[in-house]
Amino acid sequence: MEITTGINAIFILELIGAVAFAMSGATVAIREKMDLLGICILGITTAVGGGIVRDIILGITPPTAFQKPVYATTALIASLLTFLLVIRKKINIEGWFFWIMDSIGLAVFTISGALVGVSYGNAFLIVFVGNITGVGGGVIRDLFANRKPVIFQKDIYATASLIGAIIFVLLLKFNQYAAAIIGGIAVFVLRILAIKFEWGLPKVE
Amino acid sequence: MEITTGINAIFILELIGAVAFAMSGATVAIREKMDLLGICILGITTAVGGGIVRDIILGITPPTAFQKPVYATTALIASLLTFLLVIRKKINIEGWFFWIMDSIGLAVFTISGALVGVSYGNAFLIVFVGNITGVGGGVIRDLFANRKPVIFQKDIYATASLIGAIIFVLLLKFNQYAAAIIGGIAVFVLRILAIKFEWGLPKVE
Amino acid sequence: MEITTGINAIFILELIGAVAFAMSGATVAIREKMDLLGICILGITTAVGGGIVRDIILGITPPTAFQKPVYATTALIASLLTFLLVIRKKINIEGWFFWIMDSIGLAVFTISGALVGVSYGNAFLIVFVGNITGVGGGVIRDLFANRKPVIFQKDIYATASLIGAIIFVLLLKFNQYAAAIIGGIAVFVLRILAIKFEWGLPKVE
Repeated sequence: MEITTGINAIFILELIGAVAFAMSGATVAIREKMDLLGICILGITTAVGGGIVRDIILGITPPTAFQKPVYATTALIASLLTFLLVIRKKINIEGWFFWIMDSIGLAVFTISGALVGVSYGNAFLIVFVGNITGVGGGVIRDLFANRKPVIFQKDIYATASLIGAIIFVLLLKFNQYAAAIIGGIAVFVLRILAIKFEWGLPKVE
Repeated sequence: MEITTGINAIFILELIGAVAFAMSGATVAIREKMDLLGICILGITTAVGGGIVRDIILGITPPTAFQKPVYATTALIASLLTFLLVIRKKINIEGWFFWIMDSIGLAVFTISGALVGVSYGNAFLIVFVGNITGVGGGVIRDLFANRKPVIFQKDIYATASLIGAIIFVLLLKFNQYAAAIIGGIAVFVLRILAIKFEWGLPKVE
Repeated sequence: MEITTGINAIFILELIGAVAFAMSGATVAIREKMDLLGICILGITTAVGGGIVRDIILGITPPTAFQKPVYATTALIASLLTFLLVIRKKINIEGWFFWIMDSIGLAVFTISGALVGVSYGNAFLIVFVGNITGVGGGVIRDLFANRKPVIFQKDIYATASLIGAIIFVLLLKFNQYAAAIIGGIAVFVLRILAIKFEWGLPKVE
């Protein structure tokens, strides 16, 4: 019973994450002047990339995304929808749309990775797997689009995911659902604030 | 008996694919002005990349290419041969040679991935694994050469592999060999026609 | 007893390799004008990348770097130290520092990969796994920094690792420790000599 609920929570989380990341991938593809196929491929790749990385790291083979068509199908529909919204000028691809979708994907996959990681190891592993699952989709998207990977954005990115994963682990002993919700919101809010206020760290001049 | 034949068919397929993809990788390396070592490394990487991705996804570890030297050795010889043919001006690297080798590799590895996938899951998994095995080598080659990955070519590429994999699955219940041959030919023909007639899809202007 | 000593030897090797590769990654990040977070992320990624690739190939999941915080922590400290040394002008990032750190990492991870590979297969697998573990961290670093991957440097790079791994395998039947030390030194010396004397191979003009 508990396990079923847990799986369902991860499942719903991942569908939300797949929609958000597919839309972020589709937006990048549109900016890069790719055609509809490129848009769908980059959307699907971004949406399923993080989960595949997570499963391969944890030894879950074949990865869930290869076993259940629902993730790729959802991502395909979200990519097509993004294309339609852009050509009908309902979305401005140069505005906040990309960053909000990317931040939702980052938050959701961080928590999904951490949740799956719970059965596989200690606090360090949970945080690390959450982190790499969170950033995985965006990194694959940016490598494919030949962009500077989002983890090297001047605003905090991987760190937002890291802090959310740590919050999740700290709250885990109280309540898994509260931990997931609070951790996920922390990632999203930190990331949006970082973009808004251009939070960064010193560099060598 | 049946299994042995099946393994032999995959084995022969993969050697053909290794030669074709090694030649495509070597051609890209020559265009990028790499030296003979770079040419061999990119040739070998392109040839074994797709199969390694397939094996990691299916949990076949260590991947076949790490266990049997024949793949890397074949790819090495094919890379050296490409180098010799180019310096003796038998191959024009700006012409069709690259695309024909790339299309053979795409076709062969799509079917090899799908064939191995048959033991691991449903129709969706077979198609998805075929697809990712088919495009894997070329994507790794292009990431390493810092080129726009071939899956984002304006002509259909991943889609040719996808259609071939679907044809393979649809024909699978009749005869595995016919399915493999017809599916593979479909990938190759679709890809060559797509380049010839510049088949593409709408994009956002 | 023997096994414990073996594990300890690999463990100490990997910490040395993690420090060297983290410093190489941090140096690249500083050259690319990344901020302190980018420096730490690229340092950690370079340090743990090769080992994660090795473990996934051998089916060791979750990879060691995900189970033991010591690797990522060591890499983090080495990255911060590099940052401090550069801002205090103790290190010239345009000089030899990068290549020496990169060559130590290459040598150490080639041998660490080969040592772990010993339990998994024949001579070919040991050499191949050593090779890919050795070059893995640097390739991931360069893909993330959008640089030409170091395996395509005009000086021999993957080949230095390959020769060291072959020496390791040839000496293995005599003494594992001597094999590791001589193989590792061979990689390092070959690589440094290759840079110093610009060893390369013919290319197509």
